[in-house]
Amino acid sequence: MGRWEPNTRDRLARAALELFGERGYEQTTVAEIARRAGLTERTYFRHYADKREVLFGGSQVLRDRFTGAVAEAPASAAPIDVVAAGLEAIAQVFPAREDSRRRQSVVGAHPELQERELIKLATLSAAVAEALRARGVPDPTAGLAAEAGVAVLKVGYERWIAPTEQRELADLLRESLTQLKAVTAGAEEPVAKSGS
Amino acid sequence: MGRWEPNTRDRLARAALELFGERGYEQTTVAEIARRAGLTERTYFRHYADKREVLFGGSQVLRDRFTGAVAEAPASAAPIDVVAAGLEAIAQVFPAREDSRRRQSVVGAHPELQERELIKLATLSAAVAEALRARGVPDPTAGLAAEAGVAVLKVGYERWIAPTEQRELADLLRESLTQLKAVTAGAEEPVAKSGS
Repeated sequence: MGRWEPNTRDRLARAALELFGERGYEQTTVAEIARRAGLTERTYFRHYADKREVLFGGSQVLRDRFTGAVAEAPASAAPIDVVAAGLEAIAQVFPAREDSRRRQSVVGAHPELQERELIKLATLSAAVAEALRARGVPDPTAGLAAEAGVAVLKVGYERWIAPTEQRELADLLRESLTQLKAVTAGAEEPVAKSGS
Repeated sequence: MGRWEPNTRDRLARAALELFGERGYEQTTVAEIARRAGLTERTYFRHYADKREVLFGGSQVLRDRFTGAVAEAPASAAPIDVVAAGLEAIAQVFPAREDSRRRQSVVGAHPELQERELIKLATLSAAVAEALRARGVPDPTAGLAAEAGVAVLKVGYERWIAPTEQRELADLLRESLTQLKAVTAGAEEPVAKSGS
């Protein structure tokens, strides 16, 4: 890496993923994560409140990107198209697929991590709804459009990290949104898959 | 009430809601809930794993009703109509609106209760998706239809327990589903409100 070093938060997150993979989540301490990253425990706690939180460091970034894209969408855009713009925006800042897969294998194995994932998603949904209201979208449309966006994110993300999946997250989010539209329109089967 | 007594689980849940309202959730112990219900602490723990769980005793009933309705829907029904049948079914077994409001004021004030609420909703979504798959609905349609149903439930339920709301839960769920359809279809504004 030469003289360049990723920032402190990223170094800690990467060290945590490595250690969780090598010796398990339960068996890893914050002190060990900090040591692996070449930092002190004190520094760790300046960036993350606890051991769990290091796995969720990106959620604030995703939330800001999503709500930022909602705020910047053309005034004439329908709420669902505003949400689609938010999904496009966050697809650009997701971690690499392999890192996401490793992270998911840790989160999926621990109920308290799954809980925190659900809280982050609920917080994202609430933030998107609020950003839609700030554009003048009334309730319950704002809440429903935000929930639809988070549903698409969940389903598209799960597909993206599936073992054999090759397509990009942005494509899978787009396709999942199209399929949600088909589902709510009452189509018996989803529309034919786009792309190859 | 004469000789009739509600069943043990319901008695405990009602006693808990009373006490949480009178002295606060934190200040109430399991022993006090049991005593108010005229039962022992030991009996309490035969029905609920901890103090939190008494607020979520109905979630298994809702899940069973929802998935039961999904299983029994006509074979020809589109997935979203199957989900609509599930929503109709659970609207019939919700607690009284006043009890739901009291419960919500406790849950809303405590992050650890909101967490458990999110877990119950995620569990419901997963169960509905599984019931749809058992009907032969493929993924990702099954997952998306289930997420759509839970989104409608969340939004419709919030409206139902709002302070001045008079309409029935079933009507609000039906209207919220119609509005979700309008949102995903790209309508700028939700369809005109039905009913008065």
